[in-house]
Amino acid sequence: MMANQTINGMNGVTAGNGHRERALAGAVGPKRWNVQASEMAKRTFNPIRAIVDSMHIEPNPHKAMISLSIGDPTVFRNLPTDNEVRTAVKEAIDSGNYDGYAPSIGYQQAREAIADYYTCAEAPLEARDIVLSSGCSQAIEMAITVLANPGDNILVPRPGFSLYQTLATSHGVHVKHYDLLPDQCWEIDLEHMESLVDARTACVVVNNPSNPCGSVFNREHILDILAVAEKNRVPILADEIYGDMVFPGHQYHAMAPLTSEVPILACGGLAKRWLVPGWRMGWVFIHDRHQIFGQNIRDGLLRLSQKILGPSTVIQGALKRILNHTPSDFYQRTVEFIKDNAEYCYNTLTTVPGLKPFMPCGAMYMMVGIQMDKFPEYKDDVQFTQRLISDQSVFCLPAKCFEYPNYFRVVLTVPREMLEEACMRIQDFCAQNYIGTQP
Amino acid sequence: MMANQTINGMNGVTAGNGHRERALAGAVGPKRWNVQASEMAKRTFNPIRAIVDSMHIEPNPHKAMISLSIGDPTVFRNLPTDNEVRTAVKEAIDSGNYDGYAPSIGYQQAREAIADYYTCAEAPLEARDIVLSSGCSQAIEMAITVLANPGDNILVPRPGFSLYQTLATSHGVHVKHYDLLPDQCWEIDLEHMESLVDARTACVVVNNPSNPCGSVFNREHILDILAVAEKNRVPILADEIYGDMVFPGHQYHAMAPLTSEVPILACGGLAKRWLVPGWRMGWVFIHDRHQIFGQNIRDGLLRLSQKILGPSTVIQGALKRILNHTPSDFYQRTVEFIKDNAEYCYNTLTTVPGLKPFMPCGAMYMMVGIQMDKFPEYKDDVQFTQRLISDQSVFCLPAKCFEYPNYFRVVLTVPREMLEEACMRIQDFCAQNYIGTQP
Repeated sequence: MMANQTINGMNGVTAGNGHRERALAGAVGPKRWNVQASEMAKRTFNPIRAIVDSMHIEPNPHKAMISLSIGDPTVFRNLPTDNEVRTAVKEAIDSGNYDGYAPSIGYQQAREAIADYYTCAEAPLEARDIVLSSGCSQAIEMAITVLANPGDNILVPRPGFSLYQTLATSHGVHVKHYDLLPDQCWEIDLEHMESLVDARTACVVVNNPSNPCGSVFNREHILDILAVAEKNRVPILADEIYGDMVFPGHQYHAMAPLTSEVPILACGGLAKRWLVPGWRMGWVFIHDRHQIFGQNIRDGLLRLSQKILGPSTVIQGALKRILNHTPSDFYQRTVEFIKDNAEYCYNTLTTVPGLKPFMPCGAMYMMVGIQMDKFPEYKDDVQFTQRLISDQSVFCLPAKCFEYPNYFRVVLTVPREMLEEACMRIQDFCAQNYIGTQP
Repeated sequence: MMANQTINGMNGVTAGNGHRERALAGAVGPKRWNVQASEMAKRTFNPIRAIVDSMHIEPNPHKAMISLSIGDPTVFRNLPTDNEVRTAVKEAIDSGNYDGYAPSIGYQQAREAIADYYTCAEAPLEARDIVLSSGCSQAIEMAITVLANPGDNILVPRPGFSLYQTLATSHGVHVKHYDLLPDQCWEIDLEHMESLVDARTACVVVNNPSNPCGSVFNREHILDILAVAEKNRVPILADEIYGDMVFPGHQYHAMAPLTSEVPILACGGLAKRWLVPGWRMGWVFIHDRHQIFGQNIRDGLLRLSQKILGPSTVIQGALKRILNHTPSDFYQRTVEFIKDNAEYCYNTLTTVPGLKPFMPCGAMYMMVGIQMDKFPEYKDDVQFTQRLISDQSVFCLPAKCFEYPNYFRVVLTVPREMLEEACMRIQDFCAQNYIGTQP
């Protein structure tokens, strides 16, 4: 909003809603420009950015920087996507069939290909149940904004991915954090979760496999989560962007096949499993076997999709080939690489006095607890990780970024030798800073 | 929001803001699901869709359908993008450099390439003045939402592109329509525009070249618009997606170079000039030579960009090559093709009693007035165009879609023979339905 102020400010008019208004035409004195960013812009806020920007990140000039902070598996080029994926997009470009506008929810053919890929008897999917989006971020934004009004709340995990908060807060939706239990494989504290449900709870966000925990819920736990949702009549927003990225010996269960009662908006995309997060190809699945969402949520998602008209058509045009022709050993290699890194990192850090790593079962992250009382020089995980940078040039995100103090998160997709060097330096750092109790 | 209702509904609680709330824990009776689409989802609304969906579109089964309705130059494949553009994207894909997350405002290198391409002495642009977006639609959404709060208003042209209204209404921002003057080359009725400015006017949207008018403002008119904006201290949102798409003999003036005073957010993208609307590559330029927007609007745009993290990286990675290597005769050929079609269509329809076509100077549309009193069988442009479909299988959008009754819009990018056939059928239709006054 703009305002008109004379030099002495007397013409400044404050509206009831707190906006300063431009003075009426004919007011005395020259008008001044006064352009303010909107309330939405001001409250749109990435907690990670705020924390990282507040840190003094000055690596040790004698050691090469190793960043284990960014959840992007492409950074070090050791995990390229499959050539079949690249070929599919190039083919789409050459065809000339994907230059024009697609329907705002995505091409029918692309949505059919996704439905065919993800449908199952317990949670059937058709093209009409799928809305494409510009990355999983927009999928989550559409899911939140179709379900929640300003003043409503959503329940999100702690520790958890900060985007839920960024998007909810941007739209005036409150966030309530339910606890995960580190010593129970980061399962949800269901009692705590249920205690947060109130009359304005629009949905529960469940992120499985989890960023930042790397946890993968077993079937029973998912059934328990669904039971709470059903009892309280709260829909679920399932963030399944790491779906199927689970280590051998574990099994991934999508939520929708485990319920026929609870309506679910499941969000996913190409980003992580196909290792192309920049391409911005995401989707929302509408699971609604008893028409609880009904036509009004479907229409709502369609309407919201019309604001920016879906993801890039060249990726949409490639989807069918990407889903059907990416060789299965591509997925296996990725997961095995991450698992090997996870095991190495876990085995190394578990021997480090003062640290408590938690072995992940999937995704691409590991959480590491810091016994802060053993490192009295540092107030918290932010100071600890900051000093790890300045001493050892190793950058791990402090878990304060995930609303979870006294932990840090390690990204596991980096090249092995880099991870080994980083673990060694973390070891050194802790040895130098650990103050144990005398035996 | 969800509600808990017993069978007799007595436990339904209505919150102060009109939401029905879930009953308190412990309320008697089984809970029922009640999931409603959010208010935002409900009010997000594409007027074109609503009007077109309300029309009975049944073509004459004896005539092949000719659609002159969709503002997508790729539909009939007669205007393919240049091979250099396709090569640039394929190169970006093969490089493996553009698989990961870009900064949410876009790669520095891509923004530099755009700045180099569009900068000029009168309105210098650097990478920091540019925010990339998922198509020009998201650019416009970011520009509106960074400037306007719910309850504010923006001024938009009538006739005008309906997306401004869709986006503004979605965010609770009001729209006020200022008139364009058909008999003055669709220039803005500046007096009318100025009369609409009030204390909560967040910006004036100026669309030049214009959809649906095909008009191109001359320098003097743009200076006059800027003078009104400056006098009233209202920033400008310049929708310049058809920038440089002007016919030989006319000249395109971007707004920013013509003012050093008025702050401008200029929106554009690859869609129209490079003939790839589906690729969703857009941008916002921040023109702010006197720091009227200042850091707060820049920060606001950055924050808003973090919600969905920018356009697809494969297109971003191709931008430099697209901008620097697309041969200039590609642009010329496109514009000349449209101009030839425009002249043919104008020359033909201008001889048709009851119609008044307006010769465009750019973009890819022509507006045609209907003397409704000469077609008494039809109440309005919607009925007229609907009957044109059922009789002649020719589909032109009724200009009611642009808030401008008794006109229709012709898309000029269709193959010439299709346009000729369509004009002939329009001629026949009018001849059959025209009821002239007796001499």
